[in-house]
Order: sequence, then structure tokens, then C-alpha cells
Amino acid sequence: MPLTLADTEALDLVDPLKNAKSEFSIPENTIYLNSNSLGVMPKAVPERIQDFTTREWSNDLIGSWNHNKWFEAPYRIGDKIARIIGASDSEVVATDCASINLYKLVVAALNARPGRTRIVTEAGNFPTDLYMLQSVAESFAGDVEIVAVQDRNKIIEEIDERTALVVLTDVHYKTSHLLDRKAITERTHQHGALILWDLCHSAGALPVDLNELEADLAVGCTYKYLSGGPGAPGFIFVAKHLQNQLTQPLQGWWGHAEPFKFVDDYAPTEGIGRFLCSTQSVLALTAMEVGIDVFLKYEMKDIRRKSQKLGQLFIELIEERCAGFQFTIASPRDPEQRGSHVALAHDNAYAIMQALIKHKVIGDFRAPDTIRFGFSPLYMSYADIWNAVTILEEVMQTAQWDRKEFQIVNSVT
Amino acid sequence: MPLTLADTEALDLVDPLKNAKSEFSIPENTIYLNSNSLGVMPKAVPERIQDFTTREWSNDLIGSWNHNKWFEAPYRIGDKIARIIGASDSEVVATDCASINLYKLVVAALNARPGRTRIVTEAGNFPTDLYMLQSVAESFAGDVEIVAVQDRNKIIEEIDERTALVVLTDVHYKTSHLLDRKAITERTHQHGALILWDLCHSAGALPVDLNELEADLAVGCTYKYLSGGPGAPGFIFVAKHLQNQLTQPLQGWWGHAEPFKFVDDYAPTEGIGRFLCSTQSVLALTAMEVGIDVFLKYEMKDIRRKSQKLGQLFIELIEERCAGFQFTIASPRDPEQRGSHVALAHDNAYAIMQALIKHKVIGDFRAPDTIRFGFSPLYMSYADIWNAVTILEEVMQTAQWDRKEFQIVNSVT
Repeated sequence: MPLTLADTEALDLVDPLKNAKSEFSIPENTIYLNSNSLGVMPKAVPERIQDFTTREWSNDLIGSWNHNKWFEAPYRIGDKIARIIGASDSEVVATDCASINLYKLVVAALNARPGRTRIVTEAGNFPTDLYMLQSVAESFAGDVEIVAVQDRNKIIEEIDERTALVVLTDVHYKTSHLLDRKAITERTHQHGALILWDLCHSAGALPVDLNELEADLAVGCTYKYLSGGPGAPGFIFVAKHLQNQLTQPLQGWWGHAEPFKFVDDYAPTEGIGRFLCSTQSVLALTAMEVGIDVFLKYEMKDIRRKSQKLGQLFIELIEERCAGFQFTIASPRDPEQRGSHVALAHDNAYAIMQALIKHKVIGDFRAPDTIRFGFSPLYMSYADIWNAVTILEEVMQTAQWDRKEFQIVNSVT
Repeated sequence: MPLTLADTEALDLVDPLKNAKSEFSIPENTIYLNSNSLGVMPKAVPERIQDFTTREWSNDLIGSWNHNKWFEAPYRIGDKIARIIGASDSEVVATDCASINLYKLVVAALNARPGRTRIVTEAGNFPTDLYMLQSVAESFAGDVEIVAVQDRNKIIEEIDERTALVVLTDVHYKTSHLLDRKAITERTHQHGALILWDLCHSAGALPVDLNELEADLAVGCTYKYLSGGPGAPGFIFVAKHLQNQLTQPLQGWWGHAEPFKFVDDYAPTEGIGRFLCSTQSVLALTAMEVGIDVFLKYEMKDIRRKSQKLGQLFIELIEERCAGFQFTIASPRDPEQRGSHVALAHDNAYAIMQALIKHKVIGDFRAPDTIRFGFSPLYMSYADIWNAVTILEEVMQTAQWDRKEFQIVNSVT
């Protein structure tokens, strides 16, 4: 028997996370399925920011570095992020963007594994990490080779004694396929290499448990699932036992052992602070902390469970109601192998997403043929999924496509 | 005849910038003399930020990248900063922090001057630039030497055919001494080297005229004189004719020629965009733009003229009224050789600044013996200077010092 709206509403009634939605500000009549790109705003942000501007900046001015704990912010927020990604206190700082943090760690890791010549990574994933790796490889002038593996199932085989570092984004930005973090981390360690996980598509969406994994290094962003705000600062994780063995190249005064002595020679501070560079936007950090604080009220395992159920429901409904429209499910069907979004492939992907957005179902398009739907369990209901697929079905039933142009020429109004 | 409060009030009456103060939010009964560290908040910030959070982020969500011009922000704000520092359109982007921007340019410049082995810079200035240079030198493994000159008057002599790059902060963070930018830039070019000016202590405080100087490269911050907000993003300037000759190492997807093709190989975009790295806080950029917009209403030459007069008045009043208190004027007396702050040296500097802050005269302390007073002509009056010195005089008259502890044991209440 086909699923009904009532079935999904029944699921919502017993959803242990159902009250979390009230913490987020979601535009009216909108089904927002793009938290894998930009998380919605927590309702508490405007008031917090108002307080920040009018009291902390305008009134307290430089006194805020101490009184309002601006100096501590990268550490304090880092400790909060640590709880979300299974790390310990003083293993994470909130700072810079994920790409820059990756650069810091890659150079640090290569210097910590002299004589090893390879960085193993993946081809065809979100490319900014590859771009940064290519730059590092150039700066090591032929001593370092990037092994960018096309088939992600074969990455593990490429890790060997020549490997200095493995750099991987666990959830694929397009397909949502989730790597076997445990197997890859173990293999990396068996061969004496270091592992760096890019958590941009997993932090806040699924449990990561870096400490349980015995992961060495990680970076990530907070503007997707963690609702830190557009372009919010990223974070950097370094396992405690490695911190003082690594020195990163973007060594600004915030990473100095005695920053207020203003001495001419750099000496890194002990611990995670050495991965900071310089003064950064306290406003951005303040907004971002609001999102992190919301996530800390919930358990990642509950978030994950619901995310998987939302994804399964979506796939089921697509198969049931959009069967004749030539969609390909471009993500793994097994929820254990999938992140928190589902990708569909279609020849008219671009036009379909444009039509959905007109009908306030917001996902996104990735060239050439993929549309992505991200599921944020804290602010999405099962009924949202039902309604989104209903609108997709209507779009597909009524649209006429000009295939050459990839444009909709006539659609539901 | 000694100056009186009435004399300074008379100066305020005819001050062409006197109305600008109404654009800034300054705490009551406070004389804020620390814009060289953190600029005060423009009054328009809270409303702009409110609109950003509730409309752009919360309501428009990912559509804002286009509709609300988030994608353009680093370029648009860069063009605005260009007008303040005498650069042209498409020569500046607003991005990252000054230290990270410096790293990008230093590596790019060294690669553009192969065979040259030296970076000439200054010792004893704000050290974060030196820390970054030391890191770059290490990554060039012995091929690059940092020549950190102790006496800033002798820097120019060290620039020769071996020099790849000259990296200098024009206004000294402590003494406020202003380098001869013209002479140094010319000498650098005579020897075929590149010049990088760090404008952290000059952008928004004095005219820089990078194009007139024929400067090659520059970086700076916006959270001091430009009132961009605590830790606001910095900027990066590259002269147009050099842009496509330089490639910087922090090559993230925002610097790519075709960022939305998501191809595996990095190819820098043409022009100033290649100096961007990755997604950055749009909230931080938005707040910062408010400050820049205020500055664009005024002429840098008017700002500079008043800043020099404020500085001269301060020095005159210190000499007149604090003559017996063992202060040393640690800044040049010639206003043409001085930036926009004045430094005083005193054995009890720390305690004196603590006492001043208690009396709501906010400057800052720099170890071991310096107190700094920054002058922001858009929101400071001549009477402010008179009142600040009056309070300093009272503090000095009534305080009893415990010299061992550098603490005030008894002061005016």
C-alpha cells in the first residue's frame, strides 16, 4: 500500500526531535533541503548578535577581549565542536576556513613524515582540497606526489609505506557516499602514515567519533549542517598526542607561546593553540557559536537515526511516485553508506531544480546532471519529505522540457 | 599662554569633520583613544546586521549568494577599500586576515623572483609578519634569507640585487614612526625587487596612494582605523600588471577560473580573484562594509590633516601639563613622520594606563613601558584631547606608585 501524508505525519508525532524545529528560523511555506550547503539560521542569532554589536563591540570595546572572552572564543567554541565530532577538550580550535586549515595540517604532516613521498586522496570529490594539495606538492618541489584515486573503493589499496598522509572527505559532496573511516584509518596507521579527515559534509550530520577512530587530524566547516552562518569559520582538530610534534606554516602571532611579548622570533605555543594564525572575526565566531550551542542539546546518534529515516523515506517516495520520470538515485541506498543528503541524477537536472525552487522546495544543482537534497533532522519533518516529493511529482507531470536548452518552457504555476 | 579647554572647543567649531562623529557609537563619558587597536562601531551596523540575519540569511538562504550579492562581496568591498588606499578597481579583494594574505603574497613574490635570496624587512615591528616570513623562509629550505633590520632608517641600504622582496609595515605599531614609502619603493624597484606594504596601521588613518607610489603588493586589516569590527577580514592588493604573473599558494576553489565546474585541477582565475582562497564569513564582510562606507564619505587628506593636528595638540598638552611626570614622547614630533597614534614611554606605563581606563580614557599598553593613544579624526574632537590630558594629569598628580609591583596603590577616585 502506498505511503500517505498521514503516515508521515504519524512518524512526526512520535519523533523525539520534533521540538527542535522551533529553535530554527525557516521561511514560510518553504521546504529547505539544502542544509548540506548552508544551514538555516537558529532563531537565537539576531538577539545574540544585537548584544554583541551594541554591548560587546560598541560599549565594551577592547575590554571585550578579556571581559567578554573574545580571546577564548576559538578555544571555547573548539571545545564545543569537539563534543560533536567525538574529540576531547583542547583538541579543536574554531578558526579560518576549512581549506586554509587543511593547508596548515598537510604541510605540518609532511614535515612530520620525512622521506615519505605520497599523499593519498580522492579524485572527483569537492575539489578545493585537491587544489590545496597541489599547491603543497609544488612547494615540496617534486618530493611529494599526490595520488588522487578515481574509485573511492580502491583508495585503501593505495595506502602503503610510501604514504605520508591520507586526506579524505568522508561523505562525498555529490553522491553522499560515506567512506569506511575505520578501515581507512586503521590501514593508514598500519603503514605509519597520518590520516586527515575533512568533515565538511559530516560534522553535525552524523557521529564522527574522532577519538574512537584514533584519527590524527581533521578539518571541517560549520556553515552547512551546523548552522554557523554563511561562510562561518571552520575548525581544526589535532589529536592531543600529536599537537606538539607538528608545526604549521601559517604561524601568526595567535599561535605564539607568548603573543603579548611581541618578540621577533616565532615559538609555537603548546597544544592546539599553535594551529591558530591571527586575529579573526569575533562577530563570525559569535554567530557560529549559537548554531553549535543548539546542536549540543541533542545527541548525534538521534540526529543520525532520523537523518537516515528521512533519506530512506525520500528514496522510497521517489521510487514510488516518480518512477516514470527517468531519475537515477545517485546515492547509496544503504543508509549506513550514506551521509545526510540524497542525490538524484537526471538529464534535465538543472531545470528541475529551478522549477522546484520556484515552488519553494530548495535543494541544489551540481553540474552536469545532479540535484541534491539535504536532510537536517533538527528542522525537518517526515511530512516535509512527503510534501517535497509531491511537488517534485507535480513538476515532472506538468513540465515540458526544451532539452537542448535545459530550460523549463512550461511548468506548473 | 597655556592652551585652555575653550581653545580646543573653538577648534572643534570650525572642524570640517565635526559632523562625522554622529555616525559612530561611542560609549558615554568615554574618551576612546584606541582606534589603532579596535575602531568604534559605526551606528549603522546593528540595523544592517539585523537585515543580514533576518532577511539575507534566514529568509533568502542560498539564493543570497546571487540576489544579495554575497559572491561579489570580496570584490565589491575590495573596490571600496581601493579608493581609501589609492588603488584602482579590481586591484583589491577583502578576504582572510592580514597575516594569511601576507603569506600568500610573499610566496607568490619569491616564486616570481627566482634566484634572488633575500627578503628585507624590519626587526622589532609588530611581529606577526616576521613570524610568517620565518615560516616561508623555512619552506624555501635555505634558499631564502630574512634580513630583519634593527634600525628602520637603515632598511633602505639593505635593499640590493639579492633582494627578492621588501616587506614593511609603514607605520610602526609602537612608536608610530612612518617610513618614507616613496624612497623605499623606488629603491626596491631600482634593484628589480618587489615591495609589499603592510598597511595595518595606516589604512583609514592616512593617505597611502598605492598607485602613485607604484607599489606592487599590500595587505592590511580593517578592524583598526576602518571600524570593520573586531577581527574583521583583511584585504590584499596586487598591482594590476602583476596579478596574472603571480600565483599564490592558498589556492582554494574561490580562486579558480571556473569554480562551479568542480574540476580536479587548479587553474587560477585571471586578475585579483586568484588571491581569494575559499568561502568566508559573509556576516563579517557585511559588518565590515558598513565601516568602509562611512570612510568613503570623507577625504583621506582631511582625515590626515586633522589626525596630525590632534597628535600635535596631544604632544603640546603633554609637554605643557605633564612636564614633571617623567614621560618620554616615544613618537616622532614631526607630524609628517608620524602615523595616527602617539606613544609615551614611562616606567609605570602599565599602571598609568590602568588608571586612565578606570577614568574612561581608553588607550593601550605595550610591554614593557609604552602607552599608546590613537586618534581617529572622524569621531574625536580637539576637546577630547584636552580632557584626556587633563585626566592624565590628575592621575599623575594623585597616584602613589608601588614601583616594584607596577601597580597603583592609591589614585584619584
